[in-house]
Amino acid sequence: MTPIILDCDPGHDDAIAIMLAAGDPAVDLLAITTVAGNQTLDKTTLNALRVCTLAGIHDVPVAAGCPRPLTQPLQVAEDVHGESGLDGPRFGEPTVRVSGEHAVDLVHRILQEHPEPVTLVPTGPLTNIALLLTRYPENAPRIREIVLMGGSTERGNVSPYAEFNIFVDPEAAAIVFGSGVQVTMCGLNVTHQALVTPDVVARLEALGGAIGPVCVELMTFFASAYRKVFGFEAPPLHDPVAVARVIDPSLVECVDAHVAIEVVGRFTRGATVVDLGGVPNAKVAVGLDVPRFWDRLVAALANVAAPDLDLESS
Amino acid sequence: MTPIILDCDPGHDDAIAIMLAAGDPAVDLLAITTVAGNQTLDKTTLNALRVCTLAGIHDVPVAAGCPRPLTQPLQVAEDVHGESGLDGPRFGEPTVRVSGEHAVDLVHRILQEHPEPVTLVPTGPLTNIALLLTRYPENAPRIREIVLMGGSTERGNVSPYAEFNIFVDPEAAAIVFGSGVQVTMCGLNVTHQALVTPDVVARLEALGGAIGPVCVELMTFFASAYRKVFGFEAPPLHDPVAVARVIDPSLVECVDAHVAIEVVGRFTRGATVVDLGGVPNAKVAVGLDVPRFWDRLVAALANVAAPDLDLESS
Amino acid sequence: MTPIILDCDPGHDDAIAIMLAAGDPAVDLLAITTVAGNQTLDKTTLNALRVCTLAGIHDVPVAAGCPRPLTQPLQVAEDVHGESGLDGPRFGEPTVRVSGEHAVDLVHRILQEHPEPVTLVPTGPLTNIALLLTRYPENAPRIREIVLMGGSTERGNVSPYAEFNIFVDPEAAAIVFGSGVQVTMCGLNVTHQALVTPDVVARLEALGGAIGPVCVELMTFFASAYRKVFGFEAPPLHDPVAVARVIDPSLVECVDAHVAIEVVGRFTRGATVVDLGGVPNAKVAVGLDVPRFWDRLVAALANVAAPDLDLESS
Amino acid sequence: MTPIILDCDPGHDDAIAIMLAAGDPAVDLLAITTVAGNQTLDKTTLNALRVCTLAGIHDVPVAAGCPRPLTQPLQVAEDVHGESGLDGPRFGEPTVRVSGEHAVDLVHRILQEHPEPVTLVPTGPLTNIALLLTRYPENAPRIREIVLMGGSTERGNVSPYAEFNIFVDPEAAAIVFGSGVQVTMCGLNVTHQALVTPDVVARLEALGGAIGPVCVELMTFFASAYRKVFGFEAPPLHDPVAVARVIDPSLVECVDAHVAIEVVGRFTRGATVVDLGGVPNAKVAVGLDVPRFWDRLVAALANVAAPDLDLESS
Repeated sequence: MTPIILDCDPGHDDAIAIMLAAGDPAVDLLAITTVAGNQTLDKTTLNALRVCTLAGIHDVPVAAGCPRPLTQPLQVAEDVHGESGLDGPRFGEPTVRVSGEHAVDLVHRILQEHPEPVTLVPTGPLTNIALLLTRYPENAPRIREIVLMGGSTERGNVSPYAEFNIFVDPEAAAIVFGSGVQVTMCGLNVTHQALVTPDVVARLEALGGAIGPVCVELMTFFASAYRKVFGFEAPPLHDPVAVARVIDPSLVECVDAHVAIEVVGRFTRGATVVDLGGVPNAKVAVGLDVPRFWDRLVAALANVAAPDLDLESS
Repeated sequence: MTPIILDCDPGHDDAIAIMLAAGDPAVDLLAITTVAGNQTLDKTTLNALRVCTLAGIHDVPVAAGCPRPLTQPLQVAEDVHGESGLDGPRFGEPTVRVSGEHAVDLVHRILQEHPEPVTLVPTGPLTNIALLLTRYPENAPRIREIVLMGGSTERGNVSPYAEFNIFVDPEAAAIVFGSGVQVTMCGLNVTHQALVTPDVVARLEALGGAIGPVCVELMTFFASAYRKVFGFEAPPLHDPVAVARVIDPSLVECVDAHVAIEVVGRFTRGATVVDLGGVPNAKVAVGLDVPRFWDRLVAALANVAAPDLDLESS
Repeated sequence: MTPIILDCDPGHDDAIAIMLAAGDPAVDLLAITTVAGNQTLDKTTLNALRVCTLAGIHDVPVAAGCPRPLTQPLQVAEDVHGESGLDGPRFGEPTVRVSGEHAVDLVHRILQEHPEPVTLVPTGPLTNIALLLTRYPENAPRIREIVLMGGSTERGNVSPYAEFNIFVDPEAAAIVFGSGVQVTMCGLNVTHQALVTPDVVARLEALGGAIGPVCVELMTFFASAYRKVFGFEAPPLHDPVAVARVIDPSLVECVDAHVAIEVVGRFTRGATVVDLGGVPNAKVAVGLDVPRFWDRLVAALANVAAPDLDLESS
Repeated sequence: MTPIILDCDPGHDDAIAIMLAAGDPAVDLLAITTVAGNQTLDKTTLNALRVCTLAGIHDVPVAAGCPRPLTQPLQVAEDVHGESGLDGPRFGEPTVRVSGEHAVDLVHRILQEHPEPVTLVPTGPLTNIALLLTRYPENAPRIREIVLMGGSTERGNVSPYAEFNIFVDPEAAAIVFGSGVQVTMCGLNVTHQALVTPDVVARLEALGGAIGPVCVELMTFFASAYRKVFGFEAPPLHDPVAVARVIDPSLVECVDAHVAIEVVGRFTRGATVVDLGGVPNAKVAVGLDVPRFWDRLVAALANVAAPDLDLESS
């Protein structure tokens, strides 16, 4: 089992990414940390707790991190994720509690205590990870890899060439890609292949229990927002792609490349400038095995759903 | 017939664009002007004269323009077009002569004299066109449209997001796109569909006469360079796509969009930032009718080849 | 006598610069060209004609150049120079006529025809000069020197680090400083020493004739504007400093330095970044012999005033 | 007494700033934190310990912070401060020990524990302060003011418009000036008035004890470096000016102004763009009462020297 920490800003696709990480036997989810991004920090943290409560994830610490990007005001994605950041289902009061520790201190402590290097999986803006690397530079060798959802080798989704997670905190991205730690970037060029088609929705519905209906409600809202904002027929489930890369590298094909973060451009700030022929400083995802991705994701969610049903039936 | 002026930097694909413009009955080629780009100005001008000599284009004035970009040193594409800018065939001494007029003054004079507005078709860096608009701002209403080969809605070919013609003179591109004149951009996203496959080469060879063998030699060098530099199996014939758009707009599908030229970016200078949802300031090519494009191009070259044969046989 | 062409955007201080250039025996004023800057091109051209009419400058051609900067909209200095660009006096209809030639073509022709290299003295935005260098690169050896008013080694006057003439067209300035032609920059750091104190006004008044009262009215308006906009007790007479440098280099002390034009900065666009220890690409004014400057200027204006009176009395 | 924390990168002028802060009765020095800047972090930390040992500062915790700037490699000032960062005197092994806490955690703890808000006095790059504000945003109301040495209203000292402390970490400066905490900037425009003339050296020598000779050796090296690198006749003692502002605000005259940090410029990165007429976001030092500044500084150093002498004589 690969030990991972998921740093996220739930977010509909983050919610599924949490359950994938909790339910798949190939990864050991050591902690969930939250950052401002799709919504404000208090909302993304609340959403992480809601998802853990829903999915019966009681033994994984959840800690909140940075409430805003390093150098600029926060820009949220309310048009895509709604006012709560997780619009669609109605959630009750979460029973899972947030840790008193700051996300960055929790990650540091785990990195120090865990017997082997840990993989970080950021699926939101990279503010927490940049802060971790700045505050605890001695951690670098304890991080096995940073496998992130963000960026694009092609066009962006916030501006023509910038993807949301990088656009929200380009300086943090520059710190992460310049840190010397192994980085794997799963960008829009692959995550736009992970489309939640009606067939996928049907498989989520079939999960039943508490999770099935909530997943369907989440995807229904998400599909509606993506149709309205981007004109997509089916919404792309970005964040689970990064988790899938850790679960089984063969699911997400990567190539070595040089990634520069454009922090200066007047019209291109936040672009991940991927030079496929440059001196490599990162691995960049270029392909997704779509059928196997969905199989693995649905199986993991079934794992999560099952104990919950047990719990309810007991 | 649509009156056009071709502003080019031959260049293998420019050479074909010249013959397409000379041979197709839908356009009236009023002048050929040259600019530094694929090679230095003296070489691109010599190449224009060579192509006119080869194709028997004796009644179209050829004038040289700017020897370097507005604010930066010239960068040529010797790796793609060779030392001469038109490597491959052996050319004799051209019999067509260059005009004594500067390209920009020639274009100005034609715009003033021609009874109707004229379409400009730049297939190189936009230095000449920017200079024209700066020196003769009163010309704007006499320009029907600027249909250019350059830029991309996706990735570039000189840097991850910049295409060669824009990269060589970004300030000139900013002047053109900001001029208020109607601009249509045919970028890599469509020109990369105009691939010179063996089938296309065979059709060029079948043209016979003086032109057929030279076209084959040009495309053989070009294919070899594109394979080596970019790993393409067949080389894309960029520049004729812009001419084709003028010949028959239905060959090249365009959408209204906002195009900003990134002149500031550290890693993205020269990018054409195409916002498909922004306030339109240009038309942007998004589709190419590939079979009809080649049919039209081959037919035009046959028109050029025929009189030449006549001439030789007479 | 040093042959010069004055490229200006009158403007109160440009007006005095024209009379200084016309009246001083050390320089031979071959032409006056105008550019958009302190006001729109039609206004700055009209003002040049007004000054020539007032000062009896009938044998110097006046030609209009560029109506706007290369890549950005024109920003005028109406707060400093008023709605007409030369507020204060009432001018009658000018009797001097504008040339039909474009400024850049006139300069080119003079450079070609004059037996010796000519010094260009730009006192407005550098759009015309940049266009000249782009359109007629073969002119470079015919230009003895470009002695310009613009920039600063210290703070600016439009933004903290940008001076008006450079700020209005930074790309043009980049072209000029990068052209390889010898450039001498007279910036705010010296022109702010050329303060039109009450003593200077008294000397202008004493000129009498047509010129004396108009100069006083010009300086009265200019003083009022500078007090209001910048809080200066007496207004700085920028543009004549550049002319004075040509008249007698010992009036304006210069050092070799490297000048880079900041075109990219978010808050510093248009700054002249003067590295006093860098590889020199320009001469930069660092000192002004204030008493001798005023003596020379007043003497030249007296020369201009005298023949005019003669003319009237004849 | 105003409670302060000094965040420094000793450095010759930082060394004097530490002794000024320790010896003046108007401030209560709660902690000394170090950052990479004039030299690497291990050297600046060692130098802080050496100064504390020399000056008998045993009851003030010293903690090390960030070893490098947020987004770029560290650039040190070895030409000005020597290989050790404090070249000149020979120091023995320091008896003061560094805290195990990270600088940012120590500052946070003090801010939480101290009964009243605390003034931070950074005299090096702002990396630690930026990290503090990012990691502990809840601290903002506990910070009374940030009074920093850095920037300039005029020219810089590393590049034409950038001062060393800001140039080394512009993003950190942008975070600090954009944080909403009250910032007072003491830049080169005032610190260049605090010149260590022979008269000042004589007064330092007269301090006697352990401190007098060391101060003289420090200033001798510093003077030599400033003469060689900058051509100054006497070196400017930058950092104590910020401490002096806290000790007695009347020593350093400030005005309200808007300060923007240029992070984008090609030639101006790291400039503090001070708009004296803009919407104020900071106080900016514009004047120094030089005689009273030296009186106060020498008196404070005498306070530090005296107990040390006592110690030696006991």
